[in-house]
Amino acid sequence: MSIKPRILKGFNDYLPDVMLPKQRMLDTVARTFEQFGFAPLQTPALEYADVLLGKYGDEGDKLLYRFRDNGDRDVALRYDLTVPLARVVAMNRHLGAPFKRYQIAPVWRAEKPGPGRYREFLQCDVDIVGVADLMADAECMAVGAAVLDALEVGPYVLRVNNRKLLTGLLLRLGIDEGEPALAVLRTVDKLPKIGEDAVREALREQNGLDPAAVDGIFEFLALDPADLGAWFEEGSPGRVGADELSTLLRLADELGIADRVEVDLSIARGLDYYTGTIYETFVREREWMGSVMSGGRYDTLLSMFGGQPVPAVGISLGVDRLFSVLLGQGQVQPAASPAEVLVTVFSEETRAASYQAAAAFRAAGIPTEVYPGAARMKKQFKHADRQRIPFVVVIGPDEAAAGAVKLKDMHTGREWVVPLDKAMEKRNRVAGARSRRGRNSRGPSPDNRS
Amino acid sequence: MSIKPRILKGFNDYLPDVMLPKQRMLDTVARTFEQFGFAPLQTPALEYADVLLGKYGDEGDKLLYRFRDNGDRDVALRYDLTVPLARVVAMNRHLGAPFKRYQIAPVWRAEKPGPGRYREFLQCDVDIVGVADLMADAECMAVGAAVLDALEVGPYVLRVNNRKLLTGLLLRLGIDEGEPALAVLRTVDKLPKIGEDAVREALREQNGLDPAAVDGIFEFLALDPADLGAWFEEGSPGRVGADELSTLLRLADELGIADRVEVDLSIARGLDYYTGTIYETFVREREWMGSVMSGGRYDTLLSMFGGQPVPAVGISLGVDRLFSVLLGQGQVQPAASPAEVLVTVFSEETRAASYQAAAAFRAAGIPTEVYPGAARMKKQFKHADRQRIPFVVVIGPDEAAAGAVKLKDMHTGREWVVPLDKAMEKRNRVAGARSRRGRNSRGPSPDNRS
Repeated sequence: MSIKPRILKGFNDYLPDVMLPKQRMLDTVARTFEQFGFAPLQTPALEYADVLLGKYGDEGDKLLYRFRDNGDRDVALRYDLTVPLARVVAMNRHLGAPFKRYQIAPVWRAEKPGPGRYREFLQCDVDIVGVADLMADAECMAVGAAVLDALEVGPYVLRVNNRKLLTGLLLRLGIDEGEPALAVLRTVDKLPKIGEDAVREALREQNGLDPAAVDGIFEFLALDPADLGAWFEEGSPGRVGADELSTLLRLADELGIADRVEVDLSIARGLDYYTGTIYETFVREREWMGSVMSGGRYDTLLSMFGGQPVPAVGISLGVDRLFSVLLGQGQVQPAASPAEVLVTVFSEETRAASYQAAAAFRAAGIPTEVYPGAARMKKQFKHADRQRIPFVVVIGPDEAAAGAVKLKDMHTGREWVVPLDKAMEKRNRVAGARSRRGRNSRGPSPDNRS
Repeated sequence: MSIKPRILKGFNDYLPDVMLPKQRMLDTVARTFEQFGFAPLQTPALEYADVLLGKYGDEGDKLLYRFRDNGDRDVALRYDLTVPLARVVAMNRHLGAPFKRYQIAPVWRAEKPGPGRYREFLQCDVDIVGVADLMADAECMAVGAAVLDALEVGPYVLRVNNRKLLTGLLLRLGIDEGEPALAVLRTVDKLPKIGEDAVREALREQNGLDPAAVDGIFEFLALDPADLGAWFEEGSPGRVGADELSTLLRLADELGIADRVEVDLSIARGLDYYTGTIYETFVREREWMGSVMSGGRYDTLLSMFGGQPVPAVGISLGVDRLFSVLLGQGQVQPAASPAEVLVTVFSEETRAASYQAAAAFRAAGIPTEVYPGAARMKKQFKHADRQRIPFVVVIGPDEAAAGAVKLKDMHTGREWVVPLDKAMEKRNRVAGARSRRGRNSRGPSPDNRS
């Protein structure tokens, strides 16, 4: 009467062939965050429901995994990492400022699953809390750029805007604050997807703007960033936004990332809580994938639990999209084992020699697996092949008697019978040359081998 | 009408000062697993309830976080990592053997919280699936030993036993298989905690054994490992267990870990599913903490979802206990920032020079933070002090004009005004000397400074 093993829709197992390169990517991301002084934070998966409710709109509330626990508490799985950050900041005033944290963790949303949309997925956020200075906005861009550089995603562009410019625009055009203004921003945000004509029509039909207002919006969108300040009255929110954007561009220049930053006045971001800088990031060759890294400044959000407003700015990496980019570009390759070397076991008599060889490889920092049993050699080699382990070591009675090992390059099929230390040198030389030629010392998958 | 920010009982926030050294520890653990060819696996937090139910006994079923999701599915948060592994193996027969995976992930149990007992906590499991050979049992011990060595926990002992020996013992004494036998094993397992007299009494009073059977158990426990085989009849389960244990000891010797392995015939492990090798691990100076790493062979468990039995063996690291050991021994120290250097910002005019200095430190692999704003120097230094960042760089107008930077060692208070490349050399030399003396380049916490 056994239960059928199955997994919930919208949830995934990440088997080693995917998880191994993905973990490498996440390690690089975390290491880069730490290079800029961001520290890891971990919060629980479960929160009191009322801590999360009302923070994501009615639609978001409906998507919470919410239930009564055994103690009849009303609880829910976290929906994002920002509300837990706000809770932590509210409960730990001693953290001071700047508080620079990153968190890479799953979140849960009961959405209809679709291509690339899961009910459990990783969020990867980096934020600076407690700093109003635009240097914080610039640093989030710099660390984001450093991450994309470290991942070698290829050419990309950080598109920046400032929410105050949009507020100033709507004010100038006489469009009401609140929901009508937000609705207009959501329409403008669709520009890259649906094009100017469709946006103009939507602004007239759906948002009820008169033709002059629609023209005003497109006049604004066509402005040269250098002319933005003059377009708004001194002291108006639009002028403040123009000044902030100008400062941000100067900081980007000082940070050496100006070549990757572009002003894009149409970016509005769907989320309502941004108050200043907003940005999105696109991999040049894959703009169709959408933004791989987005964020902005949100100076009012963190006071959702009361108390003084706390300024904050942050970015969120789309790790699943980034991983698709890397896979698509062949930057990472599926691999089922982290081992670079498989040491086979010929017999019980030579087993200790196999263990010693493996220990020597590991001591040199080379991940090495010993086949767990003196199985037929064919079976042991097949294992190396299936797991794409690039080198195999054999120590049979002849090798053991001669104090040597046989090293086989699984990619070319070449073999060498040499002393252990020479085998390690040989493996390092071949693997090194291969990783200088390609990006991966593993060579092609078995299916592609010629 | 703001909501009071609060966290559920039995759940924790891990703030950076704790999470940073803990993450370092987990990175070392994962890296060591990979050195032995184990690959990461990730499974969802939520599973169908019936996939988990009935696997942990009635008591375990009651501790599940179980609820109906928005689609009225009966779901539950995972209770451990072993049942999800069994599900993955059942659903992915193509994984083949050996399948070597590790998983470091939270699990949820609605237990009464207590000291060191949380409702959400990390499990850290490493297992070899599909291999009956004792080389797999030995390898789990070897990777466990390598982890403890890499963490530098100090002297430790791996205590091993074999469940078949215990089965053989109970058979020989005529104690019924099933619940009565398991109850006897649970009593014997308490030996290190409650002592021989209390165990003898419990065996008589609670387990209802006659005096001859109780004597038989203690005769067995006093056996020299070398005499174990002879104590059991040829072909009996006890003899098989004795042979397996003897093979395991030989493998430990070949693996170079025999000095850390001891036979302990009283280890029974609370869990009912072990079928062969079982072991527990104690840090010598901290035996009172209990086992920091436990596991064994479970050749029937993975067939819980039907199909052919799949042999498996694994170990589980008590990461919270290990982290306590390291904290207690001063091996890791709380630190709120990963930054090794804080570059201050004197003014807008020198800001670009500060950015350049930080980029140079980072390019040399030194995590470096730039203070996000030209605040008063005192405030910037206070930040370095609070976050225990060991070095501070100042570039004021004088330094900028001279093409130099001021480097301050926050530990000794010494300062140097030198060109940037010399400052990096100086910092590396001082930090290097400090980490050779102590274990940590950060020096003592600000509170302990003399």
